[in-house]
Amino acid sequence: MPARYLPCVLPIPAVGWSPDRRALRFLDQRALPEREVVCEVAHLDGVIDAIRTLAIRGAPAIGVGAAIGLAAALELDSEGHGSRARDLLPDYAARLAAARPTAVNLAWAVGRLAAAGAAVPDAQLLATLQAEAEAIRAEDAAMCAAIGAHGRGLLRDGARVLTHCNAGALATAGIGTALAPIYAAHADGVQVEVFADETRPLRQGARLTAWELSRAGIAVQVLPDGAAAALLASGRIDVVLVGADRIAANGDTANKVGTYGVALAAAAHGVPFYVAAPCSTIDLATPDGAAIIIEHRGADELGTLPHGVGAWNPAFDVTPSRLVTGYLTDRGLLSPPFDLLRA
Amino acid sequence: MPARYLPCVLPIPAVGWSPDRRALRFLDQRALPEREVVCEVAHLDGVIDAIRTLAIRGAPAIGVGAAIGLAAALELDSEGHGSRARDLLPDYAARLAAARPTAVNLAWAVGRLAAAGAAVPDAQLLATLQAEAEAIRAEDAAMCAAIGAHGRGLLRDGARVLTHCNAGALATAGIGTALAPIYAAHADGVQVEVFADETRPLRQGARLTAWELSRAGIAVQVLPDGAAAALLASGRIDVVLVGADRIAANGDTANKVGTYGVALAAAAHGVPFYVAAPCSTIDLATPDGAAIIIEHRGADELGTLPHGVGAWNPAFDVTPSRLVTGYLTDRGLLSPPFDLLRA
Repeated sequence: MPARYLPCVLPIPAVGWSPDRRALRFLDQRALPEREVVCEVAHLDGVIDAIRTLAIRGAPAIGVGAAIGLAAALELDSEGHGSRARDLLPDYAARLAAARPTAVNLAWAVGRLAAAGAAVPDAQLLATLQAEAEAIRAEDAAMCAAIGAHGRGLLRDGARVLTHCNAGALATAGIGTALAPIYAAHADGVQVEVFADETRPLRQGARLTAWELSRAGIAVQVLPDGAAAALLASGRIDVVLVGADRIAANGDTANKVGTYGVALAAAAHGVPFYVAAPCSTIDLATPDGAAIIIEHRGADELGTLPHGVGAWNPAFDVTPSRLVTGYLTDRGLLSPPFDLLRA
Repeated sequence: MPARYLPCVLPIPAVGWSPDRRALRFLDQRALPEREVVCEVAHLDGVIDAIRTLAIRGAPAIGVGAAIGLAAALELDSEGHGSRARDLLPDYAARLAAARPTAVNLAWAVGRLAAAGAAVPDAQLLATLQAEAEAIRAEDAAMCAAIGAHGRGLLRDGARVLTHCNAGALATAGIGTALAPIYAAHADGVQVEVFADETRPLRQGARLTAWELSRAGIAVQVLPDGAAAALLASGRIDVVLVGADRIAANGDTANKVGTYGVALAAAAHGVPFYVAAPCSTIDLATPDGAAIIIEHRGADELGTLPHGVGAWNPAFDVTPSRLVTGYLTDRGLLSPPFDLLRA
């Protein structure tokens, strides 16, 4: 991948523009937590590679990265000619959308740029694509900030939060979803202590959540996923905050595998359990959790196994609505049946 | 460590005698699952090293290994002279007992040999120590067989079992505790399928349980610890079988961290949850789980963490009695307050 390496600064831009707005700039999540590598790419292959190899991950960040990457790649390869960019757009959009076919935000962001481009003459095409990509980025950052503002009040001074996987700044173009209230509180001088589940098999909690929080000066400890129930039983946790991959109309929530077990233990010990996500994650067309199809992944993610031993490795699980205290969104704290979204 | 390497055969002797009864023979659990290495040691340093470095692990196996190792080392170094062996015994016993100070079975086994030796004249000392060590080994194997016989009926043909950590043949001198009913059923031609939690941080489920079951021809799949709740919710599991490190008088059970979360999920989905352990694990002097002290271990077990990030890493958790369907022991299926043991 063509890339320039720069020192990383806080607040961490998981995805955004290069300073000259001609390239996609991102923090390479494959290198974390050992190294902080910031890359800039404008060639389409570099953008696709970054998304496919999880250098950029997290549904919102993938959408933003694809939008900025598409705008930058078309400007580069068309040498600023709108008509040439229009010729390239369908092929570039299709190739980019195929980088990770299951990532909804990827196809959504690419489609949004294509639609914006179709509505303007060639002379305005490149500027329109850039403006639309910037709108997607800014909306994502604003969404995170809104979740943070709405969730900020859940955290008193000294609050101890348990989270699972990474629904933080690294998964968005802003301050994250589940971690947004923590950053918002921290910015106000409120002391918050975070416990991050390791999150096997890919260790997003240990590698990413722990990194971004400690980098921001927030106290964080990692625990094995199996220790979450004991931690909740110990009385050390005031609130659980997790993200969501999809929220059904009845509130059943698909999120990284392990979330459901945390929710059961939180309920057993009377600890509030909040799901934090943008309203766009609430899928009114999916009636309940039974209708959510769960991706199963390979045994290789589990490390060395004895010869001939298989793995049962679902990427997500479903937490039933009854275990969720509230849904923290960019439009405030919601509850099923989410009437606000049906208006 | 002085060691001879032999191919391993089934049934797997985690610990036992060499064929000439002059050495401790064990399967080196540090090498699993990549390599099957059988070692024989008679020097005291080799015995201590095997226990300290977890080549031999699991409370029952440690006790057996210490007993056989002590008898073998004294015979070797005394060159068969009882009076010389008696001179060496106190020092050897103390050094061996210190190999892993928290392992109750280690001190218990060493103490039992010392007491047996104290009761006989020098001329009978070495033979007495060997006989006592063999008694400890045989009693352990018989204990496992009894648990298997009592638990065999829990498993119908086609039964699907979830287990956590390793409470199998590798942790005992026999067919294990939690896995004993599975081996007993398998020997009767009953088909059983096992799901083994990976068991972070040390992966005993993925490395050891999966290895010994697949080596015995029993179908086994590994899952991330966080997937256990989803697995139980899916209806794929008929029964949960786990071991125990200590069972309090009211039935509260300390076992490898992660057990409590599995118990919560099993209860939520109506799946029977059995604790399998010898009666010696039931500690009537400990009234309940709150009285059990939990060992906390270092952050290094959790793998690479971001700079400055700590870990919350308890080795065990406590499952409350109300979540346990029954206690499967060498004296049958028991329930608190364990009146049988108070007689």
